[in-house]
Amino acid sequence: MTTTATTLTGQPLDKAVLDGMLRRRMFYTPSFEIYGGVGGLYDYGPPGCALQANIIDIWRKHFILEEDMLEVDCTVLTPHEVLKTSGHVDKFADWMCKDPKNGEILRADHFVEAILEARLKGDKEARGEKVEEKEEDPKKKKKKAKSEAIKLDDAVVQEYEEVLARIDNYDGPELGELIKKYDLKNPATGVLPSDPVAFNLMFQTSIGPSSNLPGYLRPETAQGQFLNFAKLLEFNQSGMPFASASIGKSYRNEISPRAGLLRVREFLMAEIEHFVDPEGGKKHSRFHEVEGVELVLLDRDTQLSGKTETKKMTIGDAVKNGVVDNETLGYFLARIHLFLKKIGIDMSKLRFRQHMANEMAHYACDCWDAEMLTTSGWVECVGCADRSAYDLSVHAKKTGAPLIVREQLAEPRIIEEWQILIEKKKFGPLFKKDAKTVEEALQAIPQEKREQLAKELEANGKISIDVAGLASGKAEVGKEAVSIEFVKRTVNHREYTPNVIEPSFGIGRILYSLIEHSFWSRGSDGGDEARGVLSFPPTVAPTKVLIVPLSNNEQFKPQLKTLSQKLRRLGVSSRVDDSSASIGKRYSRNDELGTPLGVTVDFQTLKDGTLTLRDRDSTTQVRAEETKILDAIQSLVDGSKNWEQITKELPKFEGQELDVAAR
Amino acid sequence: MTTTATTLTGQPLDKAVLDGMLRRRMFYTPSFEIYGGVGGLYDYGPPGCALQANIIDIWRKHFILEEDMLEVDCTVLTPHEVLKTSGHVDKFADWMCKDPKNGEILRADHFVEAILEARLKGDKEARGEKVEEKEEDPKKKKKKAKSEAIKLDDAVVQEYEEVLARIDNYDGPELGELIKKYDLKNPATGVLPSDPVAFNLMFQTSIGPSSNLPGYLRPETAQGQFLNFAKLLEFNQSGMPFASASIGKSYRNEISPRAGLLRVREFLMAEIEHFVDPEGGKKHSRFHEVEGVELVLLDRDTQLSGKTETKKMTIGDAVKNGVVDNETLGYFLARIHLFLKKIGIDMSKLRFRQHMANEMAHYACDCWDAEMLTTSGWVECVGCADRSAYDLSVHAKKTGAPLIVREQLAEPRIIEEWQILIEKKKFGPLFKKDAKTVEEALQAIPQEKREQLAKELEANGKISIDVAGLASGKAEVGKEAVSIEFVKRTVNHREYTPNVIEPSFGIGRILYSLIEHSFWSRGSDGGDEARGVLSFPPTVAPTKVLIVPLSNNEQFKPQLKTLSQKLRRLGVSSRVDDSSASIGKRYSRNDELGTPLGVTVDFQTLKDGTLTLRDRDSTTQVRAEETKILDAIQSLVDGSKNWEQITKELPKFEGQELDVAAR
Repeated sequence: MTTTATTLTGQPLDKAVLDGMLRRRMFYTPSFEIYGGVGGLYDYGPPGCALQANIIDIWRKHFILEEDMLEVDCTVLTPHEVLKTSGHVDKFADWMCKDPKNGEILRADHFVEAILEARLKGDKEARGEKVEEKEEDPKKKKKKAKSEAIKLDDAVVQEYEEVLARIDNYDGPELGELIKKYDLKNPATGVLPSDPVAFNLMFQTSIGPSSNLPGYLRPETAQGQFLNFAKLLEFNQSGMPFASASIGKSYRNEISPRAGLLRVREFLMAEIEHFVDPEGGKKHSRFHEVEGVELVLLDRDTQLSGKTETKKMTIGDAVKNGVVDNETLGYFLARIHLFLKKIGIDMSKLRFRQHMANEMAHYACDCWDAEMLTTSGWVECVGCADRSAYDLSVHAKKTGAPLIVREQLAEPRIIEEWQILIEKKKFGPLFKKDAKTVEEALQAIPQEKREQLAKELEANGKISIDVAGLASGKAEVGKEAVSIEFVKRTVNHREYTPNVIEPSFGIGRILYSLIEHSFWSRGSDGGDEARGVLSFPPTVAPTKVLIVPLSNNEQFKPQLKTLSQKLRRLGVSSRVDDSSASIGKRYSRNDELGTPLGVTVDFQTLKDGTLTLRDRDSTTQVRAEETKILDAIQSLVDGSKNWEQITKELPKFEGQELDVAAR
Repeated sequence: MTTTATTLTGQPLDKAVLDGMLRRRMFYTPSFEIYGGVGGLYDYGPPGCALQANIIDIWRKHFILEEDMLEVDCTVLTPHEVLKTSGHVDKFADWMCKDPKNGEILRADHFVEAILEARLKGDKEARGEKVEEKEEDPKKKKKKAKSEAIKLDDAVVQEYEEVLARIDNYDGPELGELIKKYDLKNPATGVLPSDPVAFNLMFQTSIGPSSNLPGYLRPETAQGQFLNFAKLLEFNQSGMPFASASIGKSYRNEISPRAGLLRVREFLMAEIEHFVDPEGGKKHSRFHEVEGVELVLLDRDTQLSGKTETKKMTIGDAVKNGVVDNETLGYFLARIHLFLKKIGIDMSKLRFRQHMANEMAHYACDCWDAEMLTTSGWVECVGCADRSAYDLSVHAKKTGAPLIVREQLAEPRIIEEWQILIEKKKFGPLFKKDAKTVEEALQAIPQEKREQLAKELEANGKISIDVAGLASGKAEVGKEAVSIEFVKRTVNHREYTPNVIEPSFGIGRILYSLIEHSFWSRGSDGGDEARGVLSFPPTVAPTKVLIVPLSNNEQFKPQLKTLSQKLRRLGVSSRVDDSSASIGKRYSRNDELGTPLGVTVDFQTLKDGTLTLRDRDSTTQVRAEETKILDAIQSLVDGSKNWEQITKELPKFEGQELDVAAR
C-alpha cells in the first residue's frame, strides 16, 4: 500500500494546485474571510454544499432506510448536568502546554511529536541519509519543527521511534515527563513549556435570561439519542436490537485548528447508536450478508509493538480470529467500508485502525477508525466504537430513569436465593432516622454470605452487620425485626442495559478525502498548465449535467429552458452555462466542479433536435435525439449503465475537439 | 375567515388530545426530559424528523432547484465583530422587566398585553357579556393573567383595545409608560415591575483556547450569505439578479419560551437572500407566472387604524395598487403561498400580514409575514423582508470589502461634473498629518456647491472650507494646492450595492402548523373515544406505506421482505408492522402517524400474489396483484393520481371492516 498521497491517476498530488482550484470553484471558503477569518471555521459554497447533501442522501439510504433505523434530531444546546454525567465535562479535553516566555499555547502531544520528528530528521541528515517527507497527520501537529543536522545515538533513535509509534497513547503527565526527559524546548523561545494541563474542548454558553443555566454546544450527537432511549424503544414497539441515527452539527473548541476541513471547530456528523443485548456475544442477524467483505486492518497489538503494518482479511475471518471483537462491530465495519466505496473513496487509500487503550474516548471499550490517506497523511474519517453500557448506565443512575430493556423470557427461569425480609413495624422504631441506611446495608449483603448470616440469626437471635453510613460503623438487628429465608421463585422477565455500537461519521473529513481521491490533472500537451478534473461518481457529483449552448444566441434559449425543465422532472440537477466563454473553457470549468456530463445545444439541434452528450472523464461524445440523450443521462446518473455502454448504443460524435478548444 | 382553530373537518381542535397523540407517537419531545427538560428545547423523534426532512426536500426543489439558487452552508459560530456591524449586538433584543419583589423576569410586551386583556375580559363579565376565549398568540404571552369581573368606562375599553391592536409597535420606554399609566401590577406579587430594559437574545460563547475571541450563535443564517456575496457573485459568473439560500440551525435565547414548537431557543431556518438591482423598480422576470395568485393580505395601515380585516387580491393587483411595494417582493410572497399550499397547509388558515414601523427588524425597510391560524392564534411562520442595501453596506464599510456589483452599461453614459483635484506635492506639506482629513472633507463637498467654490478659488486664489475633523473646524487651501474643474467623462460601467429581498422560513413553526391543519378525528360510534388522523399529503408524510401481515405467522416473512425491498427501490419509504396487535389497531396507529397507504399481506396473497391497498383518509381498500398495487402506490406518492382514480382502476376490496376491528 502506498503511503504518500497521489491523484486518481497515480501522480503525486500537488496540494497547492488542488487548494487553488477548490477555492476558485467555491467548494469551501474560510468563514468571515472579509473580517480576517476565524481559525477552524469554514463555509461551504454551492458545489461543496451540494456534494455534502449528496453524501448525506446516500448515507441516509445506505444506513437509515436500509435498516429501518430511527432517525432523531436533537438539540445542539446541552445543559451542563447532562455532559457532567456523560463524563465530557471532566474528560473531553486535550493536553495543553503554555510557553512561559511568549504565552504561546501548544497542544502537548503535537508538540512532543514535532520536536522528536525534527530531531530524527536532523539525525538522518547528519548521517547523510535521504530524508523522505513523511505524511503529516492532521490529528497530531500544527506545524513541523525545523530540523538541525545533529547525529543521535542509535539507541536514542530507536527510543524516539518507539515513543512516536505510541504517541496517541500518552496522557498529560506522561507527555510532561517526556518533555522534561528529552529536554524538549519550544524552538520559538528556547524554553521548556509548562506542564500539560487539560483543556476542555466544549464551547460554553448559558441558557435563559438570568444566565443561571450553564450549557455547552454538544461535542457529539450521541447524548441526545441516549437520553431518548426509553421513548425510542417504545416507538420501536419494544423490539431489540434497533438503532437510532442522527445527522447534525457538533462542536469542538480545538486548541490549534489547521487550515482546511480536517480539524475544524464546527462540523457535520452522522452518528448511529445501535442498541444490542450484551448477552449472547453481540451477534448480528445480517452478518452473513457482509462476512466476505475484505478489509485492511491495523490492530492495537501491532501498533503497541511500534509498527504500522496492516493485514487484509475478510470481516468474517477477523471476527472468527478475534481481531474484531464481535459480529455487530464487524457488521458495521463492513457496512462503513461499503458506504465509502459507494460514494467513490479510493479503496487502496482506506484502512481500519484500532485504538490503543489510552487513546480511546472515556466511554469506549473498543474502537476502530476508518482512516483515509490524503496529503495530510492517514486521516480518521469514521469512528466505530463499542461504548458498552456506559452512557445508558450513567444517565440512568443520575436521573433514575429506567434506560433498560425488559424482555419476556421464552422459558421462565427458576431462581433460588436467600431473601432478607424486614419487619417494618419493629425495624423502623429500632433505627429511627437511620432505618433506611441500615436496610440498604442489609440488602447489599451478597448471596454467598447470607446462608451463614441466617444461621447466626437462628443461633443467636440477632446479627451484627457493618454499616458504613453510621457513625459507629455497625448495627445489631434481632430476629423480631429481620428474617433471612431461602426461597424459590419463577421469573418471566429479564431486565438489561443494552450495549451500544456507535459508527460515527465526520462528514467534512469524508468530503475532503473524497475530493482528494477524485482529483487528477489532464496531461498538458504543448506547455499549457495541467487542467484539474474531479471524477466524482454521478451519484455524489454536485451537479449532474452541464448544458451549454454553442453561443449566447437568442435562438438557443427556448431549447435550454425545456431541456432544464425535462431534466428537473427526471430529478437530475443541471446548470446552464450560456456565458461567452468558449465551449471548451466552459467544459473545463465544469471538470473542476466534477460535473460528469455535458450537453451541447448547437445549430444542428435547431434543425433536427439532436444533442451531443459529453463524458467528463474520457471527454468523448455521442450525438442522438433528445429522448435518447435523456434516457442515457438518467441511466448514467442512477448507475444502471456506464459510459462505455452508452458509447456502444449511441453514435459517437467527433465534431469538435473540445479540449483543444479549451486553450 | 374563521378566527378559532379547527380540525381539518371543521370541528373545534382539542389541543390536549392532539398534544397527547404527538407525544405518544414521538413527533417531538422535550429535550433532556429525564433531566427535567430545558425550556424552549425540543428533539424530533422519527416521524417528526422524517416530516421535517420531507418539508425541507420540497422546499429545496420549490425554491433552490426551480430558480438555480446558490446554496451555501455557513457556520453557526459567529465572531462578535460581525454581529456588532450587522446591528445585532445592539438591537437584537426584547424588552424585559423584572418584578422587584420575587425577581420574576417578564417580557414587557407580553406582560402589558396579558394584563389589559384580563381587564377587558373582566369588564365583559361584569357587563354580563359572553366571553369568547380569544386565540392566544405565541409571539406575545406566556400565560394569561386572571380576570376579575370589574366594569370599565366605555372610553377606557376603547383605549385598551387600541393599545392592544398596536402592541407590536411599542418600544421599551413606551411599554414602561403604559405600565405606569395603567398601573399594571404583576398579579403574582401586586407590585409594578421595573422599567423595561433591552435583553440581547443571542447566545454568547468564546472561540479558541485563550478565550480571547468572543462570539455568538447566529440568530439568522443571513449574515454568512452576505459576507460571501462577492464570491457568490463571481461563482454566478457576475450574473444579476441571483439568490443564495441556506438551510440550518439558528438560535434565540428567548426570555420566556413556551411549551411546544412555536417559540423555541434552537430552530431550523431556511433562508433565501435574493440580490437585486435597486434601480428600475425591482422588477422580476418571472412575475407574470404568479401574478394571478390570490393572497389574503393584512396591510400596515389597517393595523395602525386598530383593525384586523384582511383583503383578498391577486398579487398582480397588490403590486399594481402599491399594497405590496414591488414585483420581486410580490413574486416571493406568491411563491411562499404556493409552497405552503404544496406541503398541505390549509389555505383558509393563511394570511400575509405587513409589519408596522416599530415592529420591523432593524435591517428591514418593509416586511410581510405569512401567518397561520393555529390553536395559539395567528403564528408567524415565514417572513419576507426587504432588507434594502443595509447589510452589504455596513459590512463593506466596516471591512473595506467591495460588496458591490460592477455592471457594464449597454450604452456608455456621459457624466458632466465638477471635479476637485489635489496637487499632492503642495497639499501634503501644507497640512502634514491632517492632509487626509482635509482631502476627505474636500471630496465630500456636494456637486451643487462646487461651482460657487470654483468661482471663489478663481477670484481669491484660495478657499476656506469646514473640516469637522480639525480642532479649528476650518481649513484654508490656495490654488497652488487645489483646482476645481468642470469635466465631461464617458462612463462604461456602473457600480451599485444590490438590495436584498429575504424570504425566511421557520421550519419548526411550519411543521407544527401543518400538523394542526392536517389533524382530525374519526367520528366515534358506540361511545368509543375518537381516533386521531393526520391527513398529510403523501409527499410530506413521514412514511408512505405501512405493510401489515395478517398475523405474525412465519409464512408471511419472505413476502414482507421482498415487498419492502421493491418499495425501497421505487424510492418509497415503508414500514412493516408485524406486531401481534389486530390489523385495525395497527392501521389506527399509522393513521396517527399520518401514513397515507397501507398494504395487507394475507393468506390470499400466498395463494395468488394479490395484495390489498388501503387509503388512510377514506379507509376504503382495493385488491390487485403486486405489480398493479406497486404502480398505484407510486402514482399516489408522486401525486400523479389520487385515490378516487385508483378506486376506478382497481377492484374494491370489502373483505374486512378494519376500522371496526380497531376496537
